[in-house]
Amino acid sequence: MNHIASAPQYAQWLGNTNDVMGAFLAASATPGLINLGGGLPDPALFPAQDIAELAARIVRDYPNEAIGYGPIHGLPMLRALIAEQMSTNGLHIAPENVLITTGGTQALDLIGKAFIDPGDLVVVQHPTYLGALDAFRPRMPLLRTMDLKSDVDLNGVLKGAKFVYTVPNFSNPTGALVGKAQRLALLECAEQNGTYLVEDDPYGTLHYDSAPVPSALKLSATRDDQPYSGRCIYLGSLSKKISPGLRIGWVIAAPQVVASLGLAKQGGDMCTSGLTQMIAYEAMRTGLVEHILPAALSSYRARRDALCSALKDQASDLFDWEHPSGGMFVWARGKSTAFNADLVVQYGLEHGVLVSPSSVFDCTGKDTTALRLNFTLNNEADLRTAVKRLAAATRKQLSQNEPSKATSTFIS
Amino acid sequence: MNHIASAPQYAQWLGNTNDVMGAFLAASATPGLINLGGGLPDPALFPAQDIAELAARIVRDYPNEAIGYGPIHGLPMLRALIAEQMSTNGLHIAPENVLITTGGTQALDLIGKAFIDPGDLVVVQHPTYLGALDAFRPRMPLLRTMDLKSDVDLNGVLKGAKFVYTVPNFSNPTGALVGKAQRLALLECAEQNGTYLVEDDPYGTLHYDSAPVPSALKLSATRDDQPYSGRCIYLGSLSKKISPGLRIGWVIAAPQVVASLGLAKQGGDMCTSGLTQMIAYEAMRTGLVEHILPAALSSYRARRDALCSALKDQASDLFDWEHPSGGMFVWARGKSTAFNADLVVQYGLEHGVLVSPSSVFDCTGKDTTALRLNFTLNNEADLRTAVKRLAAATRKQLSQNEPSKATSTFIS
Repeated sequence: MNHIASAPQYAQWLGNTNDVMGAFLAASATPGLINLGGGLPDPALFPAQDIAELAARIVRDYPNEAIGYGPIHGLPMLRALIAEQMSTNGLHIAPENVLITTGGTQALDLIGKAFIDPGDLVVVQHPTYLGALDAFRPRMPLLRTMDLKSDVDLNGVLKGAKFVYTVPNFSNPTGALVGKAQRLALLECAEQNGTYLVEDDPYGTLHYDSAPVPSALKLSATRDDQPYSGRCIYLGSLSKKISPGLRIGWVIAAPQVVASLGLAKQGGDMCTSGLTQMIAYEAMRTGLVEHILPAALSSYRARRDALCSALKDQASDLFDWEHPSGGMFVWARGKSTAFNADLVVQYGLEHGVLVSPSSVFDCTGKDTTALRLNFTLNNEADLRTAVKRLAAATRKQLSQNEPSKATSTFIS
Repeated sequence: MNHIASAPQYAQWLGNTNDVMGAFLAASATPGLINLGGGLPDPALFPAQDIAELAARIVRDYPNEAIGYGPIHGLPMLRALIAEQMSTNGLHIAPENVLITTGGTQALDLIGKAFIDPGDLVVVQHPTYLGALDAFRPRMPLLRTMDLKSDVDLNGVLKGAKFVYTVPNFSNPTGALVGKAQRLALLECAEQNGTYLVEDDPYGTLHYDSAPVPSALKLSATRDDQPYSGRCIYLGSLSKKISPGLRIGWVIAAPQVVASLGLAKQGGDMCTSGLTQMIAYEAMRTGLVEHILPAALSSYRARRDALCSALKDQASDLFDWEHPSGGMFVWARGKSTAFNADLVVQYGLEHGVLVSPSSVFDCTGKDTTALRLNFTLNNEADLRTAVKRLAAATRKQLSQNEPSKATSTFIS
């Protein structure tokens, strides 16, 4: 032997992918860099001490559940608890409506596996969460975008789709909230077209200004004496609520959909770690999620305000943006036609700030009109510094691409 | 809304799958049933107390690693430790050769994603681990079987394959050991055909009678001053060594293969739980794996002997089998042409014993000639009872299918 192998012939989709997330993770390790590029909660808010105590107690008290193989669909007690907590007046969620996943990302992977054959049509809310594009790509779907901010012909857009993917609560990347009327319209069009609505909801508890809008899951509730059997496939996660390191998410869907996703999970990772499932169970059962939420809301609200106020003070000539009422992101759209998000990201790295360009949230990769700015990871002072750096990087990009205007920019 | 949704149109592969594993997990909960159907280690051997202490200490000492998001390819310190432990004289494994996976099953899923387009040829050692068939199925490969017990034309079999999947150490399901000469022949044919050899090795430490055979990874070692870059894709796992509930496995392969599998992992589950990775790190660093191995070997050796001796005493007229020199399984082949493994499994359930039929390890699903018997989960007395029940179930099946012979069987 001892031959160095030639490169394998990989599956086709690998030729059409990118390593944006990997590049971002690598860049985020640069010393002194302020990272507004990810979608990370603040680790200082993680209840480390509580989790340490839970972890030790769980392995001692439930060794079989915690360290043995578990059922494919998840530990029965966790499925039952999530079913109970997700049920509301008129919405009956039973354990057979619940599938535990290894983080929210796995739910997207399983949906792709169970629904998509190569060339199948999938509709995605535009711009779209990067991780969903990554998860669906190996299935080689045909992607059609749906921009809920424009006056879209929903029936036309949803026609022929296997499913439509949305983040109605504080969209990743734009932070936009889809209102109740539009949720109802989406569900009605899904019904008319015989398609399914995937409601990805990692940020639903992070609302800073007003009461939450009812979920599409709740709005599509079926007979309340029977387990839910509607057109919504709801995705929940503990990553933003307790800790992403547990990798605990869940799907709520009709029992037959849960069964099919379970077949995909069987060949995906067999089962989710019993240890992390049991920590999730205890954290949810004992109210740890609710206990830490007020501090997170208060901290994140102040950070959002700091970011938006810094943008107003230092970059209102460069960007347009909305003040998001929840979530983790501000979507800053370049005002100048010369604005190029991909270049600004590069200049930003030189200036000590990491942000995400709109191109990675566009399934064609071509949209370079905007930036996603995360406000949950850094404190207010760092956010202000980051905006200062971002403004400088943006001015530099504009000056390089519009030399005639550059002088005036630097003089002003 | 409030409409009950019609059934979705699922991806094609779901029409060609089965829920064998789910059915087995469900059946295994029957009270009084002796479960020889799975591939489970004995939970009594899990170091629960050690893991409990590790878990608590890790969350306190390494909160960022344990409960935050981690790098896609795995925590650097765990990759480095595995690289160090897998390196041997002449075999240089570097951290970039290592990808951490969410259990061994995820490694199979990622290999399927990175290598297989619909219709691509994949060669699988026959009979094949059920979980590998489950993992590859969503990619819709064309599967060709390779029976290493027959005088196979390896070059002909490997021609045109994206990769060849093997379990050389104590195959699941047969318990067979692939010898050094055959490993070398496989590697040479892989080289000649420009294909890759997947060496799935969950059972490599469980050898009861003799020294281990060098791994295909070791046998394909490239220049030892450079990270490994050969044709082997090696899969390791802690599931049989410490605890399956941690869901920690790893891939060792050429850096470019690891990078491609990482792209697949990014959309699969983003990253493996930092908590369980850190527990794995501490368990491997402090020698916990080696510490508990002697007890496992001693217990499993005695159980293997008990199972084989019970077969000899009670079922030598019904089955042929080899005494496996390691692993977790005995492969019992029905002697009678009337033997039907699928039916015996059903009768077995009625008699209080669960075993796995050969059909689930055959990619055509048609082979009903043998049974896989696990000997690691149950104690010796239960194994003897299980064989008694299995013999009765088999005699019943034969009597139903060969009525003329049935009488004599019962008289003898």
